[in-house]
Amino acid sequence: MEGFRRITIMGLGLMGGSMALGLKQRGFKGEIIGWDHSLETLEKAKSSGAVDRVCEEPRDAVKETELVVLATPVGAYSEILEKTAPFLPKNVIVTDVGSVKGSVKRVMDNQLPKGIAFIGGHPMAGSEKSGFTAADPDLYRKAKYFLTPGPDIEKAALDKMVGFVEALGAQPVVVDTEEHDRIVALVSHIPQLSAVLLASMLEGEEVQEYRTFAAGGFKDSTRIASGDPRMWKDIFLLNKQEVLSGIETLEGLLMEFKTHLEEGNDEEIFSRLKRAKAIRDGISG
Amino acid sequence: MEGFRRITIMGLGLMGGSMALGLKQRGFKGEIIGWDHSLETLEKAKSSGAVDRVCEEPRDAVKETELVVLATPVGAYSEILEKTAPFLPKNVIVTDVGSVKGSVKRVMDNQLPKGIAFIGGHPMAGSEKSGFTAADPDLYRKAKYFLTPGPDIEKAALDKMVGFVEALGAQPVVVDTEEHDRIVALVSHIPQLSAVLLASMLEGEEVQEYRTFAAGGFKDSTRIASGDPRMWKDIFLLNKQEVLSGIETLEGLLMEFKTHLEEGNDEEIFSRLKRAKAIRDGISG
Repeated sequence: MEGFRRITIMGLGLMGGSMALGLKQRGFKGEIIGWDHSLETLEKAKSSGAVDRVCEEPRDAVKETELVVLATPVGAYSEILEKTAPFLPKNVIVTDVGSVKGSVKRVMDNQLPKGIAFIGGHPMAGSEKSGFTAADPDLYRKAKYFLTPGPDIEKAALDKMVGFVEALGAQPVVVDTEEHDRIVALVSHIPQLSAVLLASMLEGEEVQEYRTFAAGGFKDSTRIASGDPRMWKDIFLLNKQEVLSGIETLEGLLMEFKTHLEEGNDEEIFSRLKRAKAIRDGISG
Repeated sequence: MEGFRRITIMGLGLMGGSMALGLKQRGFKGEIIGWDHSLETLEKAKSSGAVDRVCEEPRDAVKETELVVLATPVGAYSEILEKTAPFLPKNVIVTDVGSVKGSVKRVMDNQLPKGIAFIGGHPMAGSEKSGFTAADPDLYRKAKYFLTPGPDIEKAALDKMVGFVEALGAQPVVVDTEEHDRIVALVSHIPQLSAVLLASMLEGEEVQEYRTFAAGGFKDSTRIASGDPRMWKDIFLLNKQEVLSGIETLEGLLMEFKTHLEEGNDEEIFSRLKRAKAIRDGISG
Protein backbone atom coordinates (compact mmCIF):
# COMPACT_ATOMS: atom_id res chain seq x y z
CA MET A 1 0.00 0.00 0.00
CA GLU A 2 0.93 3.60 -0.44
CA GLY A 3 0.44 3.72 3.25
CA PHE A 4 1.63 4.80 6.62
CA ARG A 5 5.30 5.03 7.39
CA ARG A 6 4.83 5.21 11.12
CA ILE A 7 2.06 3.68 13.20
CA THR A 8 1.39 4.05 16.91
CA ILE A 9 -0.51 1.34 18.71
CA MET A 10 -1.91 2.40 22.07
CA GLY A 11 -2.52 -0.76 24.10
CA LEU A 12 -0.66 -3.97 23.36
CA GLY A 13 -3.10 -6.60 24.57
CA LEU A 14 -4.73 -9.21 22.38
CA MET A 15 -5.93 -6.74 19.74
CA GLY A 16 -3.01 -4.31 19.66
CA GLY A 17 -0.41 -7.03 20.08
CA SER A 18 -1.90 -9.11 17.30
CA MET A 19 -2.01 -6.06 15.05
CA ALA A 20 1.69 -5.33 15.60
CA LEU A 21 2.67 -8.97 15.08
CA GLY A 22 0.43 -9.23 12.00
CA LEU A 23 1.88 -6.08 10.40
CA LYS A 24 5.42 -7.30 10.98
CA GLN A 25 4.72 -10.79 9.69
CA ARG A 26 3.02 -9.48 6.58
CA GLY A 27 5.95 -7.27 5.70
CA PHE A 28 5.02 -3.80 6.95
CA LYS A 29 8.11 -1.69 6.30
CA GLY A 30 7.35 1.31 8.49
CA GLU A 31 7.99 1.89 12.17
CA ILE A 32 5.64 0.58 14.83
CA ILE A 33 5.57 2.46 18.11
CA GLY A 34 3.87 0.86 21.07
CA TRP A 35 2.43 2.16 24.31
CA ASP A 36 0.74 0.20 27.08
CA HIS A 37 -0.16 1.02 30.67
CA SER A 38 1.74 -2.09 31.75
CA LEU A 39 5.53 -1.88 31.70
CA GLU A 40 5.70 -5.65 31.65
CA THR A 41 3.63 -5.73 28.46
CA LEU A 42 5.82 -3.05 26.89
CA GLU A 43 8.84 -5.17 27.72
CA LYS A 44 7.31 -8.28 26.15
CA ALA A 45 6.17 -6.45 23.02
CA LYS A 46 9.58 -4.92 22.52
CA SER A 47 11.60 -8.06 23.13
CA SER A 48 9.35 -10.16 20.87
CA GLY A 49 9.96 -7.71 18.02
CA ALA A 50 6.26 -6.92 17.65
CA VAL A 51 7.04 -3.21 17.96
CA ASP A 52 10.14 -1.25 17.00
CA ARG A 53 9.97 1.21 19.82
CA VAL A 54 8.01 1.59 23.05
CA CYS A 55 7.05 4.69 25.00
CA GLU A 56 6.05 4.90 28.63
CA GLU A 57 4.32 8.26 28.15
CA PRO A 58 1.30 8.33 25.85
CA ARG A 59 2.26 11.71 24.43
CA ASP A 60 5.69 10.49 23.37
CA ALA A 61 4.08 7.63 21.45
CA VAL A 62 1.97 9.88 19.20
CA LYS A 63 4.59 12.45 18.25
CA GLU A 64 5.39 12.47 14.53
CA THR A 65 3.27 9.44 13.84
CA GLU A 66 0.88 9.04 10.89
CA LEU A 67 -1.67 6.68 12.39
CA VAL A 68 -2.77 6.27 15.99
CA VAL A 69 -4.62 3.04 16.73
CA LEU A 70 -6.44 2.97 20.06
CA ALA A 71 -6.42 -0.68 21.09
CA THR A 72 -7.16 -0.37 24.78
CA PRO A 73 -10.59 -1.08 26.28
CA VAL A 74 -12.99 1.58 24.96
CA GLY A 75 -13.46 2.90 28.51
CA ALA A 76 -9.84 4.05 28.54
CA TYR A 77 -9.97 6.15 25.34
CA SER A 78 -10.96 9.33 27.06
CA GLU A 79 -8.02 9.31 29.42
CA ILE A 80 -5.59 8.53 26.61
CA LEU A 81 -7.00 11.37 24.50
CA GLU A 82 -6.63 13.76 27.40
CA LYS A 83 -2.95 12.89 27.54
CA THR A 84 -2.29 12.85 23.81
CA ALA A 85 -4.69 15.22 22.00
CA PRO A 86 -2.47 18.30 22.24
CA PHE A 87 0.48 16.35 20.87
CA LEU A 88 -1.16 14.79 17.82
CA PRO A 89 0.48 15.75 14.50
CA LYS A 90 -1.74 17.76 12.15
CA ASN A 91 -2.21 15.16 9.44
CA VAL A 92 -2.48 12.10 11.65
CA ILE A 93 -5.39 9.70 11.31
CA VAL A 94 -6.86 8.35 14.53
CA THR A 95 -8.60 4.99 14.55
CA ASP A 96 -9.52 2.36 17.10
CA VAL A 97 -10.48 -1.29 17.32
CA GLY A 98 -13.40 -0.95 19.72
CA SER A 99 -16.56 -3.00 19.34
CA VAL A 100 -18.87 0.02 19.43
CA LYS A 101 -18.70 3.05 17.19
CA GLY A 102 -21.45 5.55 18.05
CA SER A 103 -20.27 6.32 21.56
CA VAL A 104 -16.62 6.27 20.45
CA LYS A 105 -17.49 8.84 17.77
CA ARG A 106 -19.01 11.08 20.46
CA VAL A 107 -15.84 10.82 22.57
CA MET A 108 -13.72 11.71 19.54
CA ASP A 109 -15.96 14.62 18.54
CA ASN A 110 -15.55 16.00 22.05
CA GLN A 111 -11.87 15.40 22.60
CA LEU A 112 -10.01 15.39 19.29
CA PRO A 113 -8.66 18.75 18.12
CA LYS A 114 -10.62 20.18 15.18
CA GLY A 115 -9.31 18.94 11.85
CA ILE A 116 -7.91 15.62 13.07
CA ALA A 117 -9.46 12.76 11.09
CA PHE A 118 -11.11 9.98 13.06
CA ILE A 119 -12.09 6.81 11.20
CA GLY A 120 -13.64 4.28 13.55
CA GLY A 121 -12.45 0.72 13.13
CA HIS A 122 -13.78 -2.58 14.37
CA PRO A 123 -12.19 -5.87 13.36
CA MET A 124 -14.58 -8.79 13.80
CA ALA A 125 -11.87 -10.86 15.40
CA GLY A 126 -11.12 -11.77 18.95
CA SER A 127 -10.69 -14.51 21.44
CA GLU A 128 -11.89 -15.28 24.93
CA LYS A 129 -8.22 -14.94 25.91
CA SER A 130 -6.65 -11.58 26.48
CA GLY A 131 -3.31 -9.88 26.92
CA PHE A 132 -0.17 -9.71 24.81
CA THR A 133 0.67 -13.34 25.56
CA ALA A 134 -2.49 -14.33 23.66
CA ALA A 135 -1.60 -12.13 20.66
CA ASP A 136 -1.59 -13.91 17.30
CA PRO A 137 -0.25 -12.50 14.01
CA ASP A 138 -3.12 -14.23 12.17
CA LEU A 139 -5.91 -12.86 14.37
CA TYR A 140 -7.03 -10.34 11.72
CA ARG A 141 -6.47 -12.57 8.71
CA LYS A 142 -9.66 -12.89 6.64
CA ALA A 143 -11.67 -11.16 9.38
CA LYS A 144 -14.31 -8.60 8.42
CA TYR A 145 -12.99 -5.21 9.54
CA PHE A 146 -15.55 -2.41 9.84
CA LEU A 147 -14.53 1.14 9.06
CA THR A 148 -16.96 3.91 10.04
CA PRO A 149 -15.77 7.22 8.59
CA GLY A 150 -17.82 10.24 9.45
CA PRO A 151 -19.28 12.43 6.68
CA ASP A 152 -16.32 14.84 6.95
CA ILE A 153 -13.65 12.25 6.11
CA GLU A 154 -11.77 12.76 2.85
CA LYS A 155 -11.56 9.94 0.37
CA ALA A 156 -7.75 9.86 0.50
CA ALA A 157 -7.82 9.24 4.27
CA LEU A 158 -10.39 6.49 3.95
CA ASP A 159 -8.39 4.89 1.12
CA LYS A 160 -5.34 4.85 3.36
CA MET A 161 -7.28 3.10 6.12
CA VAL A 162 -8.71 0.58 3.65
CA GLY A 163 -5.14 -0.15 2.55
CA PHE A 164 -4.08 -0.55 6.17
CA VAL A 165 -6.83 -3.07 6.85
CA GLU A 166 -5.89 -5.00 3.72
CA ALA A 167 -2.26 -4.97 4.80
CA LEU A 168 -3.39 -6.84 7.92
CA GLY A 169 -5.01 -9.48 5.71
CA ALA A 170 -8.49 -8.42 6.83
CA GLN A 171 -11.52 -7.48 4.73
CA PRO A 172 -12.57 -3.84 5.01
CA VAL A 173 -16.32 -3.14 5.29
CA VAL A 174 -17.26 0.53 5.21
CA VAL A 175 -20.56 1.23 7.00
CA ASP A 176 -22.47 3.96 8.68
CA THR A 177 -21.72 4.37 12.42
CA GLU A 178 -25.33 3.72 13.53
CA GLU A 179 -25.82 0.68 11.35
CA HIS A 180 -22.53 -0.73 12.65
CA ASP A 181 -23.81 -0.59 16.20
CA ARG A 182 -27.06 -2.31 15.25
CA ILE A 183 -25.17 -5.09 13.46
CA VAL A 184 -22.81 -5.83 16.33
CA ALA A 185 -25.62 -5.78 18.90
CA LEU A 186 -27.29 -8.60 16.98
CA VAL A 187 -24.30 -10.69 15.95
CA SER A 188 -22.07 -10.14 18.96
CA HIS A 189 -23.40 -8.29 22.02
CA ILE A 190 -26.70 -10.14 22.44
CA PRO A 191 -24.99 -13.54 21.90
CA GLN A 192 -22.47 -12.47 24.57
CA LEU A 193 -25.27 -11.57 26.97
CA SER A 194 -27.00 -14.83 26.20
CA ALA A 195 -23.85 -16.83 27.02
CA VAL A 196 -23.49 -14.92 30.28
CA LEU A 197 -27.10 -15.56 31.30
CA LEU A 198 -26.94 -19.27 30.37
CA ALA A 199 -23.87 -19.69 32.56
CA SER A 200 -25.63 -17.69 35.30
CA MET A 201 -28.46 -20.21 35.35
CA LEU A 202 -26.00 -22.61 37.01
CA GLU A 203 -25.32 -20.19 39.86
CA GLY A 204 -26.52 -21.05 43.34
CA GLU A 205 -26.07 -23.95 45.70
CA GLU A 206 -28.92 -26.13 44.47
CA VAL A 207 -27.86 -26.13 40.79
CA GLN A 208 -24.10 -25.77 41.15
CA GLU A 209 -23.40 -29.50 40.77
CA TYR A 210 -25.30 -29.52 37.46
CA ARG A 211 -22.20 -27.93 35.93
CA THR A 212 -20.56 -31.35 35.79
CA PHE A 213 -23.22 -32.36 33.26
CA ALA A 214 -22.44 -29.59 30.81
CA ALA A 215 -21.79 -31.22 27.43
CA GLY A 216 -20.86 -29.92 23.99
CA GLY A 217 -23.99 -27.84 23.44
CA PHE A 218 -23.70 -25.96 26.73
CA LYS A 219 -19.97 -25.50 26.27
CA ASP A 220 -20.32 -24.10 22.75
CA SER A 221 -23.15 -21.77 23.62
CA THR A 222 -21.47 -20.35 26.73
CA ARG A 223 -17.83 -20.31 25.59
CA ILE A 224 -17.74 -16.53 25.15
CA ALA A 225 -18.97 -16.01 28.72
CA SER A 226 -15.27 -16.43 29.59
CA GLY A 227 -14.56 -13.09 27.93
CA ASP A 228 -13.09 -10.20 29.89
CA PRO A 229 -15.87 -8.83 32.18
CA ARG A 230 -14.45 -5.32 32.25
CA MET A 231 -14.28 -5.10 28.47
CA TRP A 232 -17.79 -6.45 28.06
CA LYS A 233 -19.24 -4.19 30.73
CA ASP A 234 -17.89 -1.25 28.72
CA ILE A 235 -19.29 -2.61 25.47
CA PHE A 236 -22.79 -3.13 26.88
CA LEU A 237 -22.87 0.33 28.43
CA LEU A 238 -21.39 2.00 25.37
CA ASN A 239 -23.84 0.33 23.00
CA LYS A 240 -26.71 0.69 25.44
CA GLN A 241 -29.49 1.71 23.06
CA GLU A 242 -28.86 -1.00 20.49
CA VAL A 243 -28.33 -3.66 23.18
CA LEU A 244 -31.58 -2.65 24.88
CA SER A 245 -33.33 -2.88 21.56
CA GLY A 246 -31.78 -6.33 21.01
CA ILE A 247 -32.87 -7.45 24.50
CA GLU A 248 -36.42 -6.45 23.61
CA THR A 249 -36.30 -8.49 20.43
CA LEU A 250 -34.92 -11.49 22.31
CA GLU A 251 -37.51 -11.07 25.05
CA GLY A 252 -40.26 -11.01 22.42
CA LEU A 253 -38.98 -14.21 20.81
CA LEU A 254 -38.70 -15.86 24.23
CA MET A 255 -42.27 -14.92 25.18
CA GLU A 256 -43.58 -16.09 21.82
CA PHE A 257 -41.88 -19.46 22.25
CA LYS A 258 -43.12 -19.70 25.83
CA THR A 259 -46.70 -19.18 24.69
CA HIS A 260 -46.36 -21.79 21.95
CA LEU A 261 -44.91 -24.25 24.46
CA GLU A 262 -47.61 -23.58 27.07
CA GLU A 263 -50.22 -24.19 24.40
CA GLY A 264 -48.42 -27.28 23.11
CA ASN A 265 -48.43 -25.70 19.65
CA ASP A 266 -46.10 -28.17 17.96
CA GLU A 267 -46.47 -26.63 14.50
CA GLU A 268 -45.28 -23.21 15.60
CA ILE A 269 -42.46 -24.70 17.66
CA PHE A 270 -41.33 -26.86 14.77
CA SER A 271 -41.53 -23.92 12.39
CA ARG A 272 -39.36 -21.75 14.66
CA LEU A 273 -36.74 -24.50 15.05
CA LYS A 274 -36.71 -25.23 11.33
CA ARG A 275 -36.30 -21.57 10.34
CA ALA A 276 -33.51 -21.09 12.90
CA LYS A 277 -31.73 -24.17 11.57
CA ALA A 278 -31.94 -22.79 8.02
CA ILE A 279 -30.39 -19.50 9.19
CA ARG A 280 -27.60 -21.23 11.11
CA ASP A 281 -26.92 -23.76 8.34
CA GLY A 282 -26.38 -20.81 6.02
CA ILE A 283 -23.51 -19.55 8.18
CA SER A 284 -20.30 -21.54 7.85
CA GLY A 285 -18.27 -22.80 10.81
CA MET B 1 -19.31 -57.46 32.09
CA GLU B 2 -21.57 -60.25 33.18
CA GLY B 3 -23.96 -58.71 30.78
CA PHE B 4 -26.41 -59.03 27.98
CA ARG B 5 -25.98 -61.73 25.36
CA ARG B 6 -28.42 -60.19 22.94
CA ILE B 7 -29.26 -56.55 22.48
CA THR B 8 -31.90 -54.99 20.24
CA ILE B 9 -31.44 -51.44 19.06
CA MET B 10 -34.60 -49.81 17.75
CA GLY B 11 -33.56 -46.94 15.52
CA LEU B 12 -30.15 -46.83 13.88
CA GLY B 13 -29.58 -43.12 13.49
CA LEU B 14 -26.79 -41.17 15.15
CA MET B 15 -27.48 -42.52 18.66
CA GLY B 16 -28.43 -46.12 17.87
CA GLY B 17 -25.86 -46.47 15.11
CA SER B 18 -23.08 -45.11 17.31
CA MET B 19 -24.14 -47.46 20.10
CA ALA B 20 -23.93 -50.49 17.82
CA LEU B 21 -20.58 -49.41 16.37
CA GLY B 22 -19.24 -48.61 19.86
CA LEU B 23 -20.28 -51.98 21.29
CA LYS B 24 -18.65 -53.82 18.39
CA GLN B 25 -15.46 -51.81 18.54
CA ARG B 26 -15.14 -52.28 22.29
CA GLY B 27 -15.46 -56.04 21.99
CA PHE B 28 -19.09 -56.80 22.80
CA LYS B 29 -19.43 -60.54 22.21
CA GLY B 30 -23.21 -60.88 22.08
CA GLU B 31 -25.59 -60.43 19.19
CA ILE B 32 -26.83 -57.02 18.14
CA ILE B 33 -30.18 -56.90 16.39
CA GLY B 34 -31.17 -53.73 14.62
CA TRP B 35 -34.46 -52.24 13.50
CA ASP B 36 -35.08 -48.96 11.74
CA HIS B 37 -38.04 -47.50 9.89
CA SER B 38 -35.77 -46.88 6.92
CA LEU B 39 -34.79 -49.91 4.86
CA GLU B 40 -31.85 -47.98 3.48
CA THR B 41 -30.54 -47.42 7.02
CA LEU B 42 -31.02 -51.11 7.84
CA GLU B 43 -29.00 -51.97 4.75
CA LYS B 44 -26.19 -49.61 5.72
CA ALA B 45 -26.09 -50.81 9.33
CA LYS B 46 -25.97 -54.44 8.25
CA SER B 47 -23.34 -54.03 5.55
CA SER B 48 -21.10 -51.92 7.81
CA GLY B 49 -21.11 -54.68 10.40
CA ALA B 50 -22.58 -52.41 13.10
CA VAL B 51 -25.36 -54.95 13.70
CA ASP B 52 -25.39 -58.72 13.29
CA ARG B 53 -28.94 -58.99 12.14
CA VAL B 54 -31.67 -56.61 11.00
CA CYS B 55 -35.44 -56.94 11.18
CA GLU B 56 -37.99 -55.08 9.13
CA GLU B 57 -40.78 -55.75 11.64
CA PRO B 58 -40.38 -54.27 15.12
CA ARG B 59 -41.87 -57.35 16.77
CA ASP B 60 -39.30 -59.63 15.16
CA ALA B 61 -36.49 -57.49 16.54
CA VAL B 62 -37.51 -57.87 20.19
CA LYS B 63 -38.13 -61.64 20.28
CA GLU B 64 -35.74 -63.50 22.58
CA THR B 65 -33.67 -60.41 23.27
CA GLU B 66 -32.35 -59.36 26.70
CA LEU B 67 -32.19 -55.61 26.25
CA VAL B 68 -34.27 -53.34 24.08
CA VAL B 69 -32.79 -49.91 23.48
CA LEU B 70 -35.20 -47.35 22.05
CA ALA B 71 -33.00 -45.03 20.01
CA THR B 72 -35.60 -43.38 17.81
CA PRO B 73 -36.93 -39.88 18.43
CA VAL B 74 -38.91 -39.96 21.69
CA GLY B 75 -42.08 -39.12 19.78
CA ALA B 76 -41.93 -42.52 18.07
CA TYR B 77 -41.71 -44.64 21.25
CA SER B 78 -45.44 -45.06 21.63
CA GLU B 79 -45.92 -46.48 18.17
CA ILE B 80 -42.98 -48.87 18.60
CA LEU B 81 -44.34 -50.06 21.95
CA GLU B 82 -47.73 -50.68 20.38
CA LYS B 83 -46.08 -52.97 17.89
CA THR B 84 -43.69 -54.72 20.26
CA ALA B 85 -45.14 -54.79 23.79
CA PRO B 86 -46.98 -58.12 23.40
CA PHE B 87 -43.82 -59.75 22.05
CA LEU B 88 -41.34 -58.64 24.72
CA PRO B 89 -39.67 -61.55 26.55
CA LYS B 90 -40.49 -61.77 30.28
CA ASN B 91 -37.07 -60.88 31.66
CA VAL B 92 -36.11 -58.25 29.13
CA ILE B 93 -34.93 -54.81 30.24
CA VAL B 94 -36.21 -51.86 28.24
CA THR B 95 -34.17 -48.68 28.08
CA ASP B 96 -33.90 -45.67 25.81
CA VAL B 97 -31.54 -42.86 24.94
CA GLY B 98 -34.05 -40.01 24.97
CA SER B 99 -33.19 -36.60 26.36
CA VAL B 100 -36.21 -36.47 28.66
CA LYS B 101 -37.16 -39.02 31.26
CA GLY B 102 -40.38 -38.01 33.05
CA SER B 103 -42.64 -38.14 30.03
CA VAL B 104 -40.90 -41.28 28.76
CA LYS B 105 -41.56 -42.95 32.10
CA ARG B 106 -45.26 -42.11 31.76
CA VAL B 107 -45.37 -43.67 28.28
CA MET B 108 -43.67 -46.79 29.61
CA ASP B 109 -45.96 -47.02 32.64
CA ASN B 110 -48.93 -46.92 30.26
CA GLN B 111 -47.73 -49.21 27.55
CA LEU B 112 -45.24 -51.74 28.93
CA PRO B 113 -46.72 -55.02 30.17
CA LYS B 114 -46.68 -55.29 33.98
CA GLY B 115 -43.42 -56.72 35.27
CA ILE B 116 -41.20 -55.56 32.41
CA ALA B 117 -38.33 -53.47 33.79
CA PHE B 118 -37.83 -50.01 32.34
CA ILE B 119 -34.64 -48.17 33.18
CA GLY B 120 -34.53 -44.80 31.46
CA GLY B 121 -31.23 -43.87 29.88
CA HIS B 122 -29.81 -40.62 28.60
CA PRO B 123 -26.27 -40.37 27.30
CA MET B 124 -24.99 -36.77 27.34
CA ALA B 125 -23.55 -37.17 23.88
CA GLY B 126 -24.71 -36.02 20.51
CA SER B 127 -23.94 -34.02 17.46
CA GLU B 128 -25.73 -31.49 15.30
CA LYS B 129 -25.49 -34.15 12.59
CA SER B 130 -27.93 -37.02 12.42
CA GLY B 131 -28.49 -40.36 10.73
CA PHE B 132 -26.49 -43.56 10.55
CA THR B 133 -23.92 -41.96 8.25
CA ALA B 134 -23.00 -39.62 11.14
CA ALA B 135 -22.66 -42.55 13.61
CA ASP B 136 -19.37 -42.69 15.48
CA PRO B 137 -18.13 -45.60 17.63
CA ASP B 138 -16.58 -43.09 20.05
CA LEU B 139 -19.71 -40.98 20.51
CA TYR B 140 -20.41 -42.39 23.98
CA ARG B 141 -16.82 -42.61 25.11
CA LYS B 142 -16.29 -40.72 28.39
CA ALA B 143 -19.78 -39.20 28.12
CA LYS B 144 -21.93 -38.91 31.23
CA TYR B 145 -24.78 -41.41 30.81
CA PHE B 146 -27.84 -40.89 33.03
CA LEU B 147 -29.79 -43.89 34.23
CA THR B 148 -33.17 -43.23 35.86
CA PRO B 149 -34.49 -46.45 37.37
CA GLY B 150 -37.91 -46.28 38.94
CA PRO B 151 -38.37 -47.27 42.62
CA ASP B 152 -39.49 -50.76 41.54
CA ILE B 153 -36.27 -51.67 39.72
CA GLU B 154 -34.22 -54.50 41.23
CA LYS B 155 -30.57 -53.95 41.98
CA ALA B 156 -29.48 -56.77 39.65
CA ALA B 157 -31.21 -55.10 36.68
CA LEU B 158 -29.68 -51.71 37.47
CA ASP B 159 -26.25 -53.31 37.86
CA LYS B 160 -26.62 -54.87 34.42
CA MET B 161 -27.45 -51.49 32.91
CA VAL B 162 -24.53 -49.85 34.70
CA GLY B 163 -22.30 -52.54 33.20
CA PHE B 164 -23.77 -51.91 29.76
CA VAL B 165 -23.05 -48.18 29.99
CA GLU B 166 -19.49 -48.90 31.11
CA ALA B 167 -19.08 -51.33 28.20
CA LEU B 168 -19.80 -48.37 25.91
CA GLY B 169 -16.98 -46.45 27.57
CA ALA B 170 -19.46 -44.01 29.12
CA GLN B 171 -19.83 -42.90 32.76
CA PRO B 172 -23.08 -44.01 34.39
CA VAL B 173 -24.86 -41.45 36.60
CA VAL B 174 -27.89 -42.78 38.47
CA VAL B 175 -30.41 -40.05 39.29
CA ASP B 176 -34.04 -39.51 40.06
CA THR B 177 -36.29 -39.05 36.99
CA GLU B 178 -37.51 -35.57 38.03
CA GLU B 179 -34.07 -34.27 38.88
CA HIS B 180 -32.78 -35.55 35.55
CA ASP B 181 -35.32 -33.44 33.70
CA ARG B 182 -34.40 -30.34 35.70
CA ILE B 183 -30.71 -30.87 34.99
CA VAL B 184 -31.12 -31.27 31.24
CA ALA B 185 -33.47 -28.29 30.97
CA LEU B 186 -30.70 -26.11 32.41
CA VAL B 187 -27.63 -27.59 30.74
CA SER B 188 -29.14 -28.56 27.40
CA HIS B 189 -32.69 -27.52 26.53
CA ILE B 190 -32.50 -23.85 27.49
CA PRO B 191 -29.10 -23.46 25.75
CA GLN B 192 -30.70 -25.05 22.67
CA LEU B 193 -33.61 -22.61 22.83
CA SER B 194 -31.20 -19.75 23.29
CA ALA B 195 -29.22 -20.76 20.18
CA VAL B 196 -32.46 -20.99 18.20
CA LEU B 197 -33.61 -17.54 19.32
CA LEU B 198 -30.22 -15.92 18.66
CA ALA B 199 -30.26 -17.28 15.11
CA SER B 200 -33.89 -16.13 14.77
CA MET B 201 -32.83 -12.56 15.52
CA LEU B 202 -31.24 -12.54 12.05
CA GLU B 203 -34.53 -13.42 10.36
CA GLY B 204 -36.22 -10.86 8.18
CA GLU B 205 -35.26 -8.80 5.18
CA GLU B 206 -33.73 -5.85 7.01
CA VAL B 207 -31.29 -7.90 9.12
CA GLN B 208 -30.66 -10.85 6.79
CA GLU B 209 -27.40 -9.43 5.41
CA TYR B 210 -26.03 -9.10 8.96
CA ARG B 211 -25.44 -12.86 8.84
CA THR B 212 -22.27 -12.26 6.82
CA PHE B 213 -20.83 -10.54 9.89
CA ALA B 214 -21.29 -13.50 12.21
CA ALA B 215 -17.91 -14.24 13.79
CA GLY B 216 -16.62 -16.83 16.24
CA GLY B 217 -18.82 -15.81 19.16
CA PHE B 218 -22.06 -15.93 17.20
CA LYS B 219 -21.05 -19.18 15.54
CA ASP B 220 -20.19 -20.89 18.81
CA SER B 221 -23.29 -19.72 20.60
CA THR B 222 -25.68 -20.73 17.81
CA ARG B 223 -23.96 -23.91 16.56
CA ILE B 224 -26.55 -26.23 18.11
CA ALA B 225 -29.38 -24.36 16.36
CA SER B 226 -28.48 -26.65 13.43
CA GLY B 227 -29.85 -29.60 15.40
CA ASP B 228 -32.76 -31.65 14.07
CA PRO B 229 -35.93 -29.51 14.45
CA ARG B 230 -38.22 -32.51 14.75
CA MET B 231 -36.18 -34.07 17.55
CA TRP B 232 -35.93 -30.77 19.43
CA LYS B 233 -39.62 -30.00 19.03
CA ASP B 234 -40.30 -33.34 20.75
CA ILE B 235 -37.80 -32.63 23.51
CA PHE B 236 -39.25 -29.19 24.30
CA LEU B 237 -42.80 -30.53 24.39
CA LEU B 238 -41.86 -33.62 26.37
CA ASN B 239 -39.94 -31.62 28.97
CA LYS B 240 -42.47 -28.82 28.93
CA GLN B 241 -42.69 -28.07 32.66
CA GLU B 242 -38.96 -27.93 33.28
CA VAL B 243 -38.34 -25.95 30.07
CA LEU B 244 -41.06 -23.45 31.04
CA SER B 245 -39.48 -23.12 34.44
CA GLY B 246 -36.08 -22.58 32.79
CA ILE B 247 -37.57 -19.95 30.45
CA GLU B 248 -38.87 -18.09 33.49
CA THR B 249 -35.43 -18.14 35.10
CA LEU B 250 -33.83 -16.89 31.88
CA GLU B 251 -36.50 -14.23 31.50
CA GLY B 252 -35.83 -13.06 35.05
CA LEU B 253 -32.09 -12.81 34.41
CA LEU B 254 -32.73 -10.95 31.15
CA MET B 255 -35.05 -8.43 32.83
CA GLU B 256 -32.61 -7.93 35.69
CA PHE B 257 -29.78 -7.22 33.23
CA LYS B 258 -32.04 -4.91 31.21
CA THR B 259 -32.82 -2.87 34.31
CA HIS B 260 -29.16 -2.61 35.26
CA LEU B 261 -28.32 -1.51 31.73
CA GLU B 262 -31.12 1.05 31.57
CA GLU B 263 -29.90 2.47 34.87
CA GLY B 264 -26.27 2.38 33.73
CA ASN B 265 -25.48 0.34 36.83
CA ASP B 266 -21.94 -0.65 35.90
CA GLU B 267 -21.22 -2.38 39.21
CA GLU B 268 -24.10 -4.82 38.86
CA ILE B 269 -23.32 -5.43 35.19
CA PHE B 270 -19.67 -6.08 35.96
CA SER B 271 -20.59 -8.37 38.84
CA ARG B 272 -22.91 -10.44 36.64
CA LEU B 273 -20.26 -10.78 33.89
CA LYS B 274 -17.56 -11.67 36.39
CA ARG B 275 -19.64 -14.34 38.12
CA ALA B 276 -20.67 -15.86 34.79
CA LYS B 277 -17.04 -15.96 33.70
CA ALA B 278 -16.09 -17.77 36.91
CA ILE B 279 -18.80 -20.36 36.27
CA ARG B 280 -17.79 -20.89 32.64
CA ASP B 281 -14.06 -20.94 33.45
CA GLY B 282 -14.80 -23.78 35.85
CA ILE B 283 -16.16 -25.93 33.01
CA SER B 284 -13.50 -27.37 30.73
CA GLY B 285 -13.65 -27.21 26.95
